Amino acid sequence: MASKVHLPEDRYFGPDPRQKEIAQRLYQQVAKLPLICPHGHVDPRMFADPNYSLGTPTDLLIIPDHYVFRMLYSQGVPMEKLGIPRRDGGKVERDHRRVWQTFAEHFHLFRGTPTGMWLNDELLSVFGVEEKLCGESAQRVYDQIEARLASPEFRPRKLFERFNIEVMSTTDFATDPLVHHQALRKSGWKGRIVPCFRPDGVVNIDAPNWHKNIDALGKVSGIEATSYMALIRALENRRVFFKSLGATSTDHAAMTAYTGELSDAEAEAIFQRATSGEATPEDATRFTGHMLMQMARMSIEDGLVMQLHVGSYRNHNPILFTRFGTDMGADIPIASEFTRNLRPLLVKYGNDKRLTLILFNLDESAYSRELAPLAGHYPALRLGPPWWFFDSLNGMERARELMIETAGLHNTVGFNDDTRAFPSIPARHDLSRRVDANWIAGLVVRGIVDMEDAEEMIQDTAYRLAKKAYKL
Amino acid sequence: MASKVHLPEDRYFGPDPRQKEIAQRLYQQVAKLPLICPHGHVDPRMFADPNYSLGTPTDLLIIPDHYVFRMLYSQGVPMEKLGIPRRDGGKVERDHRRVWQTFAEHFHLFRGTPTGMWLNDELLSVFGVEEKLCGESAQRVYDQIEARLASPEFRPRKLFERFNIEVMSTTDFATDPLVHHQALRKSGWKGRIVPCFRPDGVVNIDAPNWHKNIDALGKVSGIEATSYMALIRALENRRVFFKSLGATSTDHAAMTAYTGELSDAEAEAIFQRATSGEATPEDATRFTGHMLMQMARMSIEDGLVMQLHVGSYRNHNPILFTRFGTDMGADIPIASEFTRNLRPLLVKYGNDKRLTLILFNLDESAYSRELAPLAGHYPALRLGPPWWFFDSLNGMERARELMIETAGLHNTVGFNDDTRAFPSIPARHDLSRRVDANWIAGLVVRGIVDMEDAEEMIQDTAYRLAKKAYKL
Amino acid sequence: MASKVHLPEDRYFGPDPRQKEIAQRLYQQVAKLPLICPHGHVDPRMFADPNYSLGTPTDLLIIPDHYVFRMLYSQGVPMEKLGIPRRDGGKVERDHRRVWQTFAEHFHLFRGTPTGMWLNDELLSVFGVEEKLCGESAQRVYDQIEARLASPEFRPRKLFERFNIEVMSTTDFATDPLVHHQALRKSGWKGRIVPCFRPDGVVNIDAPNWHKNIDALGKVSGIEATSYMALIRALENRRVFFKSLGATSTDHAAMTAYTGELSDAEAEAIFQRATSGEATPEDATRFTGHMLMQMARMSIEDGLVMQLHVGSYRNHNPILFTRFGTDMGADIPIASEFTRNLRPLLVKYGNDKRLTLILFNLDESAYSRELAPLAGHYPALRLGPPWWFFDSLNGMERARELMIETAGLHNTVGFNDDTRAFPSIPARHDLSRRVDANWIAGLVVRGIVDMEDAEEMIQDTAYRLAKKAYKL
Repeated sequence: MASKVHLPEDRYFGPDPRQKEIAQRLYQQVAKLPLICPHGHVDPRMFADPNYSLGTPTDLLIIPDHYVFRMLYSQGVPMEKLGIPRRDGGKVERDHRRVWQTFAEHFHLFRGTPTGMWLNDELLSVFGVEEKLCGESAQRVYDQIEARLASPEFRPRKLFERFNIEVMSTTDFATDPLVHHQALRKSGWKGRIVPCFRPDGVVNIDAPNWHKNIDALGKVSGIEATSYMALIRALENRRVFFKSLGATSTDHAAMTAYTGELSDAEAEAIFQRATSGEATPEDATRFTGHMLMQMARMSIEDGLVMQLHVGSYRNHNPILFTRFGTDMGADIPIASEFTRNLRPLLVKYGNDKRLTLILFNLDESAYSRELAPLAGHYPALRLGPPWWFFDSLNGMERARELMIETAGLHNTVGFNDDTRAFPSIPARHDLSRRVDANWIAGLVVRGIVDMEDAEEMIQDTAYRLAKKAYKL
Repeated sequence: MASKVHLPEDRYFGPDPRQKEIAQRLYQQVAKLPLICPHGHVDPRMFADPNYSLGTPTDLLIIPDHYVFRMLYSQGVPMEKLGIPRRDGGKVERDHRRVWQTFAEHFHLFRGTPTGMWLNDELLSVFGVEEKLCGESAQRVYDQIEARLASPEFRPRKLFERFNIEVMSTTDFATDPLVHHQALRKSGWKGRIVPCFRPDGVVNIDAPNWHKNIDALGKVSGIEATSYMALIRALENRRVFFKSLGATSTDHAAMTAYTGELSDAEAEAIFQRATSGEATPEDATRFTGHMLMQMARMSIEDGLVMQLHVGSYRNHNPILFTRFGTDMGADIPIASEFTRNLRPLLVKYGNDKRLTLILFNLDESAYSRELAPLAGHYPALRLGPPWWFFDSLNGMERARELMIETAGLHNTVGFNDDTRAFPSIPARHDLSRRVDANWIAGLVVRGIVDMEDAEEMIQDTAYRLAKKAYKL
Repeated sequence: MASKVHLPEDRYFGPDPRQKEIAQRLYQQVAKLPLICPHGHVDPRMFADPNYSLGTPTDLLIIPDHYVFRMLYSQGVPMEKLGIPRRDGGKVERDHRRVWQTFAEHFHLFRGTPTGMWLNDELLSVFGVEEKLCGESAQRVYDQIEARLASPEFRPRKLFERFNIEVMSTTDFATDPLVHHQALRKSGWKGRIVPCFRPDGVVNIDAPNWHKNIDALGKVSGIEATSYMALIRALENRRVFFKSLGATSTDHAAMTAYTGELSDAEAEAIFQRATSGEATPEDATRFTGHMLMQMARMSIEDGLVMQLHVGSYRNHNPILFTRFGTDMGADIPIASEFTRNLRPLLVKYGNDKRLTLILFNLDESAYSRELAPLAGHYPALRLGPPWWFFDSLNGMERARELMIETAGLHNTVGFNDDTRAFPSIPARHDLSRRVDANWIAGLVVRGIVDMEDAEEMIQDTAYRLAKKAYKL
């Protein structure tokens, strides 16, 4: 028998007894609030089919989670041994119990990491696993999770209700016909799941499969995108469709925050070069920068909240990309500049209260230097929660410490779980609520805010800001 | 009746009881020391006229304070509603009670911000307001401040004495005839207020109104700046004049820290291109970089301490700039480089102990990477306190934590309030003294320094370093 | 009599009593473990001669330590007054007691600095000095250290044994004949001291004295490096020699992390331009970037661990460089980029488990943004401990806080003392062990890891990770 999982009631709060007591008091006020999940990557298919099964423990917790397998890979465990499917159909481990065993034997690698914290919580709170995961306990833990997953209580809809999710947004390609969302709406199930409009594949002319995506956009919208102007019309058409299925937001990813407006003629010329395969990298940068401004314009017109994720160098490792595809843990942040890059967009649209532009970034040095001052000035700008590597205990504490003094809490938008890993959602929100309770308790014990203000702040961070910013 | 203002005696100290006790002990040793205010933007006119009135609460606390109104603007409150005067004379709210009401209704936006901390302290300690500011209490608080401002005890000279200010520097254009400083000197009032020489408007050839400033410089100095050499002579002339009225320092702002010497012929050629309106942006950069070196040379000769403020992208929002002018909360930091940019100046003058060059910056990533190593080596270089957005509780803690290990405390210069908001001065110094007491107490409880050293350090940070570095 | 040195048993632990108690418990488990010193700059000559004397207190603690004299220099104390020898043989203070007096009178400058912490510990723990160092106590302290240094117990071999050093690596030029290492091996003394292969002087074509170094390489290897191909062969030859004397690692310094492969023809052409003195700065950058890749290839073949130190602008102050030479405290960090610069090397060799590439850097903004994500993915990459200015209490805490959540502890390599100052080694390791014990205790009190995991982690950080990563 391995040791018991360590998940104390007062976890994640700081050590000072008075701060901890206040943190616990604040936490208790929001611990049971419904979850607002305004940005994430859960597959809507899970909910469209009432009998959808989550598969084996390995299907659920390892194979789709690049946070997990990248850590083992970094320590020399081959991806094949973890059951990650190869693009060429090459041989990989198919025995999920063996994969689980490998994972459990390396679980010590996650000490002090957010993945470790989420998994400990998830295993105990969702699956009732009380034993600490290690090589010795691996198969018993597998048995236990497997048994739970087989029970009707572990169908995704049931979990959605048990998790007390008030609303969850998925993230969907602009060309997605949203059949699962349509099915969901017709099903009569009362869980609220809405799509989010992500047009990167058609507005970034250097996206993989851009030509294919443009064709698909024509088919799904009924407007063939043979020109820049037609592209704009097709996008506007899709936004209407997404809104009709409940979408309140769009999402955009760009390597840099560059924005800048082109004339219609310039945009058209670049679009035509892209169509004929002659666009340059500079064309791609300028077109993306222009399309971000178009997206801001459309958001002002149709009210969809605009999200922008900046700063990831995708697929840094070509060997892994070739063998396994995208999202293999090899997306690495780069330094980002916002003050000059975002200026064209902010100058044109940033003073317009009808726009909500939520920024996510992977360069913490910009938090206090650029992002907080920009958000503390422009009415349209809001700061998203710490993203990706920074969605962690220390990362969240740094974000509060570095941004709130200048930006103010009300220029932030609460928490996003931003995850594919559906059963980790409660653990992620809980960690965030605890970190915020502890941060606010710190302000109380240092005499910066009183309890009256603190109680408002914890409601804001845990629930109200996300709901308001995303118009949910 | 609203709640009472929350301003505990032990505010801003960390929660650990032993650290707090030591912090309080250290704080008590400096809490009543006179204030050294070596850099700021208070209007000397306030003191030249012994009966100067500070106006309404809105005149005093809202309209001139871009920290305050930018936050409301960022949440969608129009500047006009806050009484900020438009350049075109367009209609703005004139009823100061209404402006105050709007401000009070949004006061929750300042939770956890330095503005919130300063205002809470200022309202209670300076104006005796015990009620928490909110929409409900707004008019009662206004009444109370208004009554105080009407009393003779609230004339600026009286407040200066009550605040126990030992010396205060203003910041004055190179072309300023300093009539208020002259009047002050003649008045017999014993408060010590000195000017600081700021020549940006004439040495940065891309400054707004450069031609006008150059003309004014000619008039005020009696040396027409029709050539680069004449400009140098005119500046030297003005420095003598500023010194004669007590100045001990100069101040320079530049977007980057670029320095580099031009030959006289190059400098002259650029100056002539500027005169005829043909200078390029590169000319402007090179001329500023050259003039910073000239300023260092002059400082070595006349002993004025040289301050350099680097890294603000001014007037980022042209709509606001056009409508309301400068200093509207739309100055946004950019990343800054010092190791290479400052090198020409440091190589030429940095080994000269007669020079004191005090650096201010808005890019915290340079604190430990470039600034502390540079200041920990060059005899001429000192590090200014955290500037602007970073003049905050967290900002000051980070500055200590990131710079002192490498630079040593003695390569820093104590605190600057750097404010236009005269009645906030005691609150600002008090926050700084508390943060330092808490930081030093942290070193004591961790066994890094003993109490003997700690007591020296708090005297240094609260009083001695500023006085010495600025030769006051 | 001055005050007593302040060196409490629980120093460097945080103030919270529960965290402190756990930290002490963890610290006790590793406090007496042997020291692994896998990277440093101690002179092997010290140990080759069993009767080597460490000289005067000033010889030992001031003249060779740029951490010490740069701080005094920054406050206006001339280098000459500190006894630093001039290249031109110009007059400097020869009286070591006078130098010591000057140092002691400025010892307050080190309050809160790592140098201050190391010296306090070293003076008390190694030399038994119980009096606090200051001007008044200076000569008494000098007497005491002088007496100790004269005793046989203070011969370097004796100290090595007393310090409980299990293994220590020196750092040696590629052209070094390693006579002291050879003598050591033959001497029968059982202390384990190994060389480390540092080829910067021959692979960086812009290194000072490159031509001379290339000649020396020819002589020592018997392979005249008249071509790029011959250079490669000569380097491979030297690596075999270094390995034969126990080396397990190489070390490389570069201003940037730029890597990129040249064709053999390009490499040859640049080499020939360098030989004839016609190489451009761009040639130098490209050649270094190429040679780093060659070094990675060789490491895969011969198993030597590869260290890379990035980001120092060397000899920033030409006046000091001309007068006193290199390593005078005027090496200043610059911003560094890794995601793009290291990519060519990582793409080619980063997936190969046979390579261990240990990165050191001087730009903390890259910790969480680039270094942790890269190390948390590539099997070959490990993160070195905080380097140089960042080898400090706060610097180590920041490194843990900013990197472990993403990289995981097992992608780091424990502690390096990286010092020339032999008698400071125990103090440096002790500080590091205390900081780690306190950090891990913080994870325990916040419920992030349990004591079982914590006990593994402290063994890893204090001993196991360094030994394993460096194959010692």
